[in-house]
Amino acid sequence: MTTPEQAQKAYLDELIKARLLLPTGVAGVYGRGPVFEGVIDRFDALVKRAGEYQRAEAWRFPPVLSRRHFEVSRYLKSMPQLAGLVHSFTGDSAAHNKLLAAVEGGEAYAGLLSMTDVVLAPAACYPCYPTAAAQGPLPKGGRTFDILNYCFRHEPSPDPARLQSFRMYEYVRMGEPEEVRTWIEDWRERGADVLRSIGLDPDIATANDPFFGRGGKMLAANQREQQLKFELLYPITSTEQPTAVTSFNYHQDHFGGLFGLKTADGQVAHTACIGFGMERVTLALFKKHGLDPQRWPAAVRAKLWP
Amino acid sequence: MTTPEQAQKAYLDELIKARLLLPTGVAGVYGRGPVFEGVIDRFDALVKRAGEYQRAEAWRFPPVLSRRHFEVSRYLKSMPQLAGLVHSFTGDSAAHNKLLAAVEGGEAYAGLLSMTDVVLAPAACYPCYPTAAAQGPLPKGGRTFDILNYCFRHEPSPDPARLQSFRMYEYVRMGEPEEVRTWIEDWRERGADVLRSIGLDPDIATANDPFFGRGGKMLAANQREQQLKFELLYPITSTEQPTAVTSFNYHQDHFGGLFGLKTADGQVAHTACIGFGMERVTLALFKKHGLDPQRWPAAVRAKLWP
Repeated sequence: MTTPEQAQKAYLDELIKARLLLPTGVAGVYGRGPVFEGVIDRFDALVKRAGEYQRAEAWRFPPVLSRRHFEVSRYLKSMPQLAGLVHSFTGDSAAHNKLLAAVEGGEAYAGLLSMTDVVLAPAACYPCYPTAAAQGPLPKGGRTFDILNYCFRHEPSPDPARLQSFRMYEYVRMGEPEEVRTWIEDWRERGADVLRSIGLDPDIATANDPFFGRGGKMLAANQREQQLKFELLYPITSTEQPTAVTSFNYHQDHFGGLFGLKTADGQVAHTACIGFGMERVTLALFKKHGLDPQRWPAAVRAKLWP
Repeated sequence: MTTPEQAQKAYLDELIKARLLLPTGVAGVYGRGPVFEGVIDRFDALVKRAGEYQRAEAWRFPPVLSRRHFEVSRYLKSMPQLAGLVHSFTGDSAAHNKLLAAVEGGEAYAGLLSMTDVVLAPAACYPCYPTAAAQGPLPKGGRTFDILNYCFRHEPSPDPARLQSFRMYEYVRMGEPEEVRTWIEDWRERGADVLRSIGLDPDIATANDPFFGRGGKMLAANQREQQLKFELLYPITSTEQPTAVTSFNYHQDHFGGLFGLKTADGQVAHTACIGFGMERVTLALFKKHGLDPQRWPAAVRAKLWP
């Protein structure tokens, strides 16, 4: 009987032995060899092709975002345990000597650092909402964005499919409630089609975010009841606990209200996003088709290397 | 008479107006529109072609790295003011209530967070040295890596050419002292050729890292005297203070010694790297040839869009 932890470790060891992943000494933080990155690049191109019909505006943001925007987003209320806030050293020479002594002695030195104005992006789309809002009301028909970024979530895990730092390719829709809801429902099928086209047959499931604490239980129940979040699941290291490789989120007026994003006729805009977990999909591909992409089924290769 | 600050602000405003850069409310942290990213992608491909003769091993790392490796690298000794350490929330519900009250009240809340095991990469090559060392001694002839990553430096600035979060494309050489020195000297000319091929005629200069404090002055003088760091400079927002768009660093046995990286015959390996500042080169291109790449000189376009 294999436990989930054993299965995770076994797959991680395989990936490291094949130099697809490079260990860094921190759980959930890995470098990648050229074969792994080659597959990510090709899946990236596939997602781009699948979304081309939208004529989305491609924006790229760095992996850090404004702390103020992060605070406004209420992430510290809902998922503080996953947050990554950036601290730096702003002291003088005397403070520097203390810092070096603490590092040398293996003592805590968080107290010798200061908070900066940036945090790590928890999801690729976060900087989109305030940036779009700053450009004024949406045009009639709304806006659609093409976003790719590194995300950070503080959840060290032995599971190679649960990384602390990973890439998410997102399409983000902003507009009237009806057009946004139609769009995200449409993507549920489109997203599953993308995965099926490369040999991954996902299950779809209602889902909730990992909200913090007792209050979080209510938020999660509410999110499920209203069917605001769906995930495409694929068994990477466990069939009982399959991994979410794609997620669909309908935020209703959450981000529109917080950041003052308005529709053409001045209403609070609704927003939604679909995100592909780039490393997770790649790990699912290696799991399904084997560690050597040269030997993957011809139909899958034709989709990825057209 | 235009001050450097006025020139920086004027260029930044132009870039924002053209939606090449997207402001995020934090100095030195910008999103990029599709035209800016399109140029970065093409310059990325040009650097790849220029380095192809090396058959370098392509490794990609996430933008965070092991805090332990960061401490071992002595970055906190030499440039603590630029560091970015990642903190998160690990408390219970009571602590969470305090955190939310502090955020709500606009009070400091650094003390309610804990240090994690990761930091932001200050240069793209940092994770390379411990990762290579963990794979055992170098083969005869050493190893060469192709590295691209987001880097973070805590230096908020109004200069669009001085970002807090930016990409660096690096080649990294590890081996015997003589082969490493020859390689980095060879790249001084190759690197300048890459820039000249796209219409940027850089100056080369001996340089030093921005070491911290009084002790840092000696480190900087020593680095200059031994000619361990060179930069290719191009005037982006100022002719008096041109910007380093490419840098060459010969670390001698610094990283080899710290991380236990050995040559084939068991000596401490020497290392060196060349890094192209991707956003800086792109900003130099827009400065030199104008904000619309469609109208750049044919010879430059032919190099970037071959």
